[in-house]
Amino acid sequence: MRNTLLSAGSVAWLSSVAEGSPLPFSPIAQTQGYALGIADYTFRHFDIPQSIAIMQDLEIKQLTIKDFHMPLNSSPEKIREVMAQYAAGGIHVYGVGVIYMKTRTDVDQAFNYAKNAGVSLIVGVPEYALLDYTEQKVKQYGIRLAIHNHGPQDKLYPGPAEVYEKIRNRDLRMGLCLDVGHAIRAGQDPAQAVLSYSRRLFDMHIKDVTKAEDTGEAIEIGRGVVDFQALVRALRKVGYSGHCSIEFEKNIPDKSREFPGIAECIGYFKGVSETIV
Amino acid sequence: MRNTLLSAGSVAWLSSVAEGSPLPFSPIAQTQGYALGIADYTFRHFDIPQSIAIMQDLEIKQLTIKDFHMPLNSSPEKIREVMAQYAAGGIHVYGVGVIYMKTRTDVDQAFNYAKNAGVSLIVGVPEYALLDYTEQKVKQYGIRLAIHNHGPQDKLYPGPAEVYEKIRNRDLRMGLCLDVGHAIRAGQDPAQAVLSYSRRLFDMHIKDVTKAEDTGEAIEIGRGVVDFQALVRALRKVGYSGHCSIEFEKNIPDKSREFPGIAECIGYFKGVSETIV
Repeated sequence: MRNTLLSAGSVAWLSSVAEGSPLPFSPIAQTQGYALGIADYTFRHFDIPQSIAIMQDLEIKQLTIKDFHMPLNSSPEKIREVMAQYAAGGIHVYGVGVIYMKTRTDVDQAFNYAKNAGVSLIVGVPEYALLDYTEQKVKQYGIRLAIHNHGPQDKLYPGPAEVYEKIRNRDLRMGLCLDVGHAIRAGQDPAQAVLSYSRRLFDMHIKDVTKAEDTGEAIEIGRGVVDFQALVRALRKVGYSGHCSIEFEKNIPDKSREFPGIAECIGYFKGVSETIV
Repeated sequence: MRNTLLSAGSVAWLSSVAEGSPLPFSPIAQTQGYALGIADYTFRHFDIPQSIAIMQDLEIKQLTIKDFHMPLNSSPEKIREVMAQYAAGGIHVYGVGVIYMKTRTDVDQAFNYAKNAGVSLIVGVPEYALLDYTEQKVKQYGIRLAIHNHGPQDKLYPGPAEVYEKIRNRDLRMGLCLDVGHAIRAGQDPAQAVLSYSRRLFDMHIKDVTKAEDTGEAIEIGRGVVDFQALVRALRKVGYSGHCSIEFEKNIPDKSREFPGIAECIGYFKGVSETIV
């Protein structure tokens, strides 16, 4: 019913991306609610044309791109070419990542990459020792950094609480990409995290898992333990106006069944999102 | 989250079907809410094993079977064989149809077919002149008949109002299979129909269409003009405890993209259903 949910910010950016100029701070801030997107890890078994075709089929226009579709060491020309390929397919690449940063060189590369791509958001994971340097780069480039939590196995940022603790006293352009599935595996309630860290919530990785513990595995949205009703209520309550990007990473031996899995995830999250308004 | 929605009545029937005995009047009446299912027309381009595999993938266990998967003139042995095939796959065939009845022979065949299949529900379309005879058969067999509406082109039953008018003074086992998409194309609000005809509402065909008029075409649930939030609120209000069967009939030239379309429909309707409880 509510197609505005999906078309948020889908006009202005196309021309600006095509010309390689930087995007405004938040192309969707003026719209009601959040936009649905996809995190590119979802498409790890698809090439760019296949990914675009799937997104077109699903009528999803917002993407954060992973390095397997655009290597971090790509030339500015190559980056322009890839971005133009998505733009020609009607897809807005609104961010890059997840990018892991273990050295200053990694940080430099990430910010140059984002700048060349013309995006205003890096989803990234800087080592603690690099946070001061990363903050300098955020200020220098005017590009936001959303630090991603990766669950109990992640020694740096298992959940959103650990991310928030590291960025709370830093530049306001440093914040969270809240990974819902990894948060709940880390014993942290995603809905509560939205309420607690809303002022620094820049991006969302939407997924479901089989258990609210370390061993929880990826599953289609709606089939697992995440309470998406509570999550969406929290997002509405804080007026979240960023993206909610589905990240489907269930391990399916038959790769031809990944597209239906993605479609089910999109359908379920749309259904909840359009019911809680 | 709420898997009870999907597993409604999924225990008792398997053994009874396997033994060919008739099902109780309503295997899911004792559960809270309705069960999700699929109307078999969705699988018109798939054979039985493919249909079962898709339903297993989607964790949907309830089906109304169409004649292309089990011809109306099948022998009792053939019917047992097909029903056992679904049962072995964990699928409960809870009804047969849509079956068109233009002669008494058609009516006789339909009720024998349903009896041999061990189902308690026929989704059917009897000519007006056959309604008295059909009512006799309903009484004789103890099998319910849900008359299906097929939109403006349907001279007999374009919308649920026309169905209700014909059955309201008949046996209580004669009722409606409310086809949501065809109802809205006929200018009738599906949610209002649920409220108005709830006592005779036996089955639901859940779909979306591009326009609320004759020329509306099938589309993935959530992308069209049907207000599924209002529909589910109405179903909850009247305590509907039958099935909600997705019927996906969008014309997609690339048949490999039908499965994702079905999955998106299931996801969306589950999302809405699990949010409005």
